[in-house]
Order: sequence, then structure tokens, then C-alpha cells
Amino acid sequence: MQKFMQIAIKEAKKAQKIDEVPIGAVIVVNGKILGKAFNKRNSSKIATHHAEILAIEKACKKLGDWRLENAEIFVTLEPCPMCAGAIANARIKKLVFGAYDTSGTNHNLIFEILNDTRLNHKVEIVGGILESECKQLLTDFFKKKR
Amino acid sequence: MQKFMQIAIKEAKKAQKIDEVPIGAVIVVNGKILGKAFNKRNSSKIATHHAEILAIEKACKKLGDWRLENAEIFVTLEPCPMCAGAIANARIKKLVFGAYDTSGTNHNLIFEILNDTRLNHKVEIVGGILESECKQLLTDFFKKKR
Repeated sequence: MQKFMQIAIKEAKKAQKIDEVPIGAVIVVNGKILGKAFNKRNSSKIATHHAEILAIEKACKKLGDWRLENAEIFVTLEPCPMCAGAIANARIKKLVFGAYDTSGTNHNLIFEILNDTRLNHKVEIVGGILESECKQLLTDFFKKKR
Repeated sequence: MQKFMQIAIKEAKKAQKIDEVPIGAVIVVNGKILGKAFNKRNSSKIATHHAEILAIEKACKKLGDWRLENAEIFVTLEPCPMCAGAIANARIKKLVFGAYDTSGTNHNLIFEILNDTRLNHKVEIVGGILESECKQLLTDFFKKKR
């Protein structure tokens, strides 16, 4: 899992370079990368352009299917409700994220949304992979901003 | 509100014509339409291509801002968690939807997600506008499918 999270971190660093909140995502099926992306909401000025959404869209295009059924998604930060919903909608099997969004407003919502029994798709969730590195990226970014 | 829901219904009918689940969405700021779209998940094969997401993206492009702060979104069906999150992320002021998703798996999740006190944006929600017309579209679609 560390290997793919490192690639997600590389994506996050691309966001950082263009002064975006450094968040990266990678989608993997059977050990093969199907899509990777970084947050670009401020530069594209599109509210939906979180790393996860862009990575999911790339993976769907590559696979030619909206169902990413055997996919795993690696994200540097605990996803927001929009991205949680997109992960379920794309039928992704497993979500692996790095930093917990303890300073954000969405903390733990991901677990509540994805564990809701009303959803017709179950996603396995693992948090805290390469946590300190993922968190450091965000801490450094917001320290500079202040 | 009926006027803009009628336009959302027109969008839903465009989806129906290409054999997509008939759901439409319209985004309005100060009485002016900024974006309208219909569900095209099956034809585009992209998991995120719900009517709401596509309408939000169009409105952001038109406004040149990811913040749709004085916007209202009109949707023919109660939105799923992904679209609920996108509506909050885009800072949309008000959500008006037609049919309740009682036969779907997301019913009432929209209220729980958008009323969660952890979110840093509050969205006003009104459900049941032109409800029977919006519901009929879906009932007819799924009846044909069986």
C-alpha cells in the first residue's frame, strides 16, 4: 500500500507546485495504475475538481466503464462527502487514505457515509497509511499561506 | 420554483431519449440559468456524470468561480451522497428537488449529509416540487426496462 501512496504523494506535490492544496489520488486495479490526479479546484475554478473525482474520471475513461469494481483508490487525505459518494458510485472496492482530516470539517463523515447500510455498495476503508508524510505536506502548505 | 423544475424535467427528458435514467438539473443565480444538464453515466461511462455534477461544472465554468454562492439547484430526483457533497462544496445556497428517492438506496441521506454540523456550508433543502411529474418519468423508464 505504501508504494501507491507514495505515488499519490507525488501527485499531491504537483498540486503544491501550482499553489493548490496538496492532495493526490491514484486508482489501481490488479496492481496497475488506471488513473492519478491532484487537486486543482482553485486553478480550474471548478468545485468538483478534487483529486479523487479527477482520478475516478480518468480511470473510467481508461477502462471504458463507470464501474471500477476491482479498483482501490489511494488518497493522501481523508475524502470529503462528495468524494466518498463518488467512490461508492464508481463501485470502488477499497479506499486507502493517508492523513485524517482532523483539522477539516469532514472528519469521520467518510466512515459514516460509506458504512451507511442504505448504500448498495460496500467500500473497505483503511486510514493512516504514510500518515505523517501526507499530513506534513498539508501542514507546510497552510503554514506558508498564513 | 415550478418554472425551473420544468426546465430540469426537460433536461431529464433528454436523458430519457438516449436511454439514460431520466434525471435533470438546472442551476440558477438571481433568476438566470447558469448551467443545465442531464444524467449521462451510461453513455459517457463515467461514474461521476450525474446531472447535478455536470450542471455544477457548467455553472462554475460560466461564472469563472468554484463558489456558486447565491445559486439554487433544481433537480428532478433527490440527490445521492456524491451530489449532496458537490452541492455543499460549490457553496450552493438552496437545493430544490422533485421526486423523493424512496425506491433508491440513498433516501434521506441527502438530509443527513447536508444537515451535518461538521460541514462548513449550510444548504437549504426543499423536496417534492412537481413531485408526481418527476416521479412518473422514472416510473415509466423503469417499467419499460423490465
